[in-house]
Amino acid sequence: MSEPVHSIHPSARIGANCRIGWYAVIHEDVVLGDGTEIGDHAVIGPGTRLGAGVKVGPGSVVGKQPSSNARIKRKPAALSPLQVGDGTAIGANVVLYAGSEIGEDVFIADHASIRENARVGSRTVIGRAATVELNTTIGSRVVVQTGAYITGDMTIEDDVFIGPRVSTSNDKYMGKRPYAYQGAIIRKGAAIGNNATLLPGIEIGEEAVIGGGAVVSKSVPAGQIWIGNPARPLKPSSQEKKGE
Amino acid sequence: MSEPVHSIHPSARIGANCRIGWYAVIHEDVVLGDGTEIGDHAVIGPGTRLGAGVKVGPGSVVGKQPSSNARIKRKPAALSPLQVGDGTAIGANVVLYAGSEIGEDVFIADHASIRENARVGSRTVIGRAATVELNTTIGSRVVVQTGAYITGDMTIEDDVFIGPRVSTSNDKYMGKRPYAYQGAIIRKGAAIGNNATLLPGIEIGEEAVIGGGAVVSKSVPAGQIWIGNPARPLKPSSQEKKGE
Amino acid sequence: MSEPVHSIHPSARIGANCRIGWYAVIHEDVVLGDGTEIGDHAVIGPGTRLGAGVKVGPGSVVGKQPSSNARIKRKPAALSPLQVGDGTAIGANVVLYAGSEIGEDVFIADHASIRENARVGSRTVIGRAATVELNTTIGSRVVVQTGAYITGDMTIEDDVFIGPRVSTSNDKYMGKRPYAYQGAIIRKGAAIGNNATLLPGIEIGEEAVIGGGAVVSKSVPAGQIWIGNPARPLKPSSQEKKGE
Repeated sequence: MSEPVHSIHPSARIGANCRIGWYAVIHEDVVLGDGTEIGDHAVIGPGTRLGAGVKVGPGSVVGKQPSSNARIKRKPAALSPLQVGDGTAIGANVVLYAGSEIGEDVFIADHASIRENARVGSRTVIGRAATVELNTTIGSRVVVQTGAYITGDMTIEDDVFIGPRVSTSNDKYMGKRPYAYQGAIIRKGAAIGNNATLLPGIEIGEEAVIGGGAVVSKSVPAGQIWIGNPARPLKPSSQEKKGE
Repeated sequence: MSEPVHSIHPSARIGANCRIGWYAVIHEDVVLGDGTEIGDHAVIGPGTRLGAGVKVGPGSVVGKQPSSNARIKRKPAALSPLQVGDGTAIGANVVLYAGSEIGEDVFIADHASIRENARVGSRTVIGRAATVELNTTIGSRVVVQTGAYITGDMTIEDDVFIGPRVSTSNDKYMGKRPYAYQGAIIRKGAAIGNNATLLPGIEIGEEAVIGGGAVVSKSVPAGQIWIGNPARPLKPSSQEKKGE
Repeated sequence: MSEPVHSIHPSARIGANCRIGWYAVIHEDVVLGDGTEIGDHAVIGPGTRLGAGVKVGPGSVVGKQPSSNARIKRKPAALSPLQVGDGTAIGANVVLYAGSEIGEDVFIADHASIRENARVGSRTVIGRAATVELNTTIGSRVVVQTGAYITGDMTIEDDVFIGPRVSTSNDKYMGKRPYAYQGAIIRKGAAIGNNATLLPGIEIGEEAVIGGGAVVSKSVPAGQIWIGNPARPLKPSSQEKKGE
C-alpha cells in the first residue's frame, strides 16, 4: 500500500520515527515527540504537545478547544495547549481538551473524555468511556474504571481506586440556587465501589472503602468501610471480614 | 496549509462563510445555514438541515438513518431529515439521527447521542455521553447532565434539571410480556439527582426534587423531595434544611 | 458525486456488491463478505473477517489490536483477528477488538465497545454506549440495553435481559489484594433492572428478576425477584403482583 494520506500543517514539528495514520489531521504548531504513533482519522489540535512514544488511537480528538454557545454559563477563556507526557497511551474515539496536563505513562481507554484545566498524574488509568470534567485534579497511580463519572472541581489523590460507573456531582442545588461548585475530595488510597454515588462537597478519608452501589451523602473518616443508601459505617464486627 | 480536502455532494447547499474541515463528508441534499462550522471527519447525512451558525465538532455523525437487522423489533420507517436550529453547538464524536428536531441555541456535548423522532427545545443542554432514545420530547432550557440516560417514549418539560448519570427505563416487564413502552414524565422545573433511577411510567411533579442515588418506583407529587431506595418523601421537618 | 475516496490495502479481499464509504480504511488481510457496507471513516483492522451483509457505521473501529503501556497489568498477547457473523449490524463510533467472535444477526449500537477474547451469540443486541470487557461470554438472543457495563470474566447465558445502565464488577478487593477476577454469572432468561449493581462473583439464577436500582451482593436463586439496597427477596405475597 502506498504511504498514508493525511494532513500535517507545515508549522507542526514531528519527531523521529513517528507513524501517522490514514486521514489523520495534525493542526498548526503541534509538537510530536520521537516515536509517537497517531491513528487513522485522529485529530491533533493546535499547539498540542505529545511526549515521546505517545500513542493516539483512531478517531480520537486530542487538544480540542472548548465549544460554547448562548447556553453555556462558564465561557471558556483562551487555553494553553494540551500537554501529554512520555509513554502515555490514548485509545480510540477519545476526546481530550486543551488546557489540561496529562502525565507520563498514563493509559486513557477508548471513548473516554477529559475536559479543560484538568491534571492527571503519572501512571494513572482513565477507563473506557470514563469522563473527567473541568478543573479536576487526579493524582498518580489512580485507577478510574470503565464508565466512571468524575465531575468538575474535584480532587482525587494518589493511589485511589474508582470502580466502574461510579458517579459524582458538584452542584448541591442542581442549578436552583447559586453554589460554589465542589465535587468530592478523595484522599490517598481510598477505594470507591462499582456504581457508588458521591454527593457534592464530601470528603472520603485515606484508605476508606465505599461499597458497591452505596450513596454517600456525608464525609467518611479515614480507614472506614461504608455501605448502603444512605451509606453508613459497616459494623465493626463485620469490618474484619468484608471488603467488597 | 492548503485548503482542506473534503467531500461535498453537488446537490448540497452551503451558506455564506461556512467552514468545512478536513475529510468531512457532506451528503446529498444537505442544507447548511450561513456561518456553520463543520469539524474534521464530521459526516452530515442526506437532507440534514443545519441552521445559521451551527457548529459540528470533529468525528460527529449528524443526520444518521437508523440501522437495523433481523434482531430489531421496531423497524425504522422512512424518516424526515434532521433539523437543527440556529446557534446550536454540537461536540465531537456525537451521533444524531434523522427524523428529529433540535431547537435553537442547544448545546450537545461530546459523545452524546440522540435517536430518531426526538424533539429537543431551545437553549437545552444535552451533556457529554448523554443518550436520548427515540420518540422522546425534551422541553426548553432543560439541563441533561453528563452520562444521563433518557429512555424512549419519555417526556421532560421545560426547565427540568437531570443530574449526571440519571437512569430511566420504559419497559416494565423487561421484554418478558407485551407492554406499551412508557418512560417517566417529568414536569416543569423538577430536579433529578446524580445517578438516580426512575422506573417506567411514573410521573415526577412540578418542582419536585429527587435526591442523588434515589430509586423512584412511584409517582412523586409536585414540590416534594424524595430520597432513598425505594424513594420516600423526606420528612417535613427536614425539608426546610435539605435540598441536595 | 465521484466515487468515494478511501484506502483499501491490496491484500484485502472484498466480496461482491460491497459499499465502502468516504475515507474508510481497510487494512491488510481483511476479508469482507458479499454485500457488506462500510461507513464513512470506518477503520477495519488487519485480518478482520466480516460475514455477508455486515454493516459497519461511520467512524467505527473494528478489529482493533489492544493498546498498552507501562501501566497495564494484563499484557495483550498476539490476538486472532475479529470475526463477525453474517447479517450483523454495527453502529457509528463503535470500537470492537481483535480476538473476539461476534455471531450472526447481532445488533451493536452506536458508541458501544467490545474488548478482546469476548464471545457474543447470535441475534443478541448490544445497546448504545454499552461496554463489554475482555474474556466475557454472552449467549444468544440476549438484550444488553443502553449504557450497560458488562465487566470482564463474566458469563451471560441465552435469553437474558440486561436493563439500561446496569453495572457489574469483577474485582472484590478493588486492586488492594490479589484476586482471581470473577464477574457475575447470569443464568438463562434472567432479567436485571435499570441501573442495578451486581457485585463480583455472584450468580443470578434462571429466570430470576432483579429490580431497578437494586444492589446485589449475594447469589439469587432461580425464579426469585430481588429488590433494594442491599437486595433482598420480594415478599412472596408481593411476588404475584410485581415484576418491574
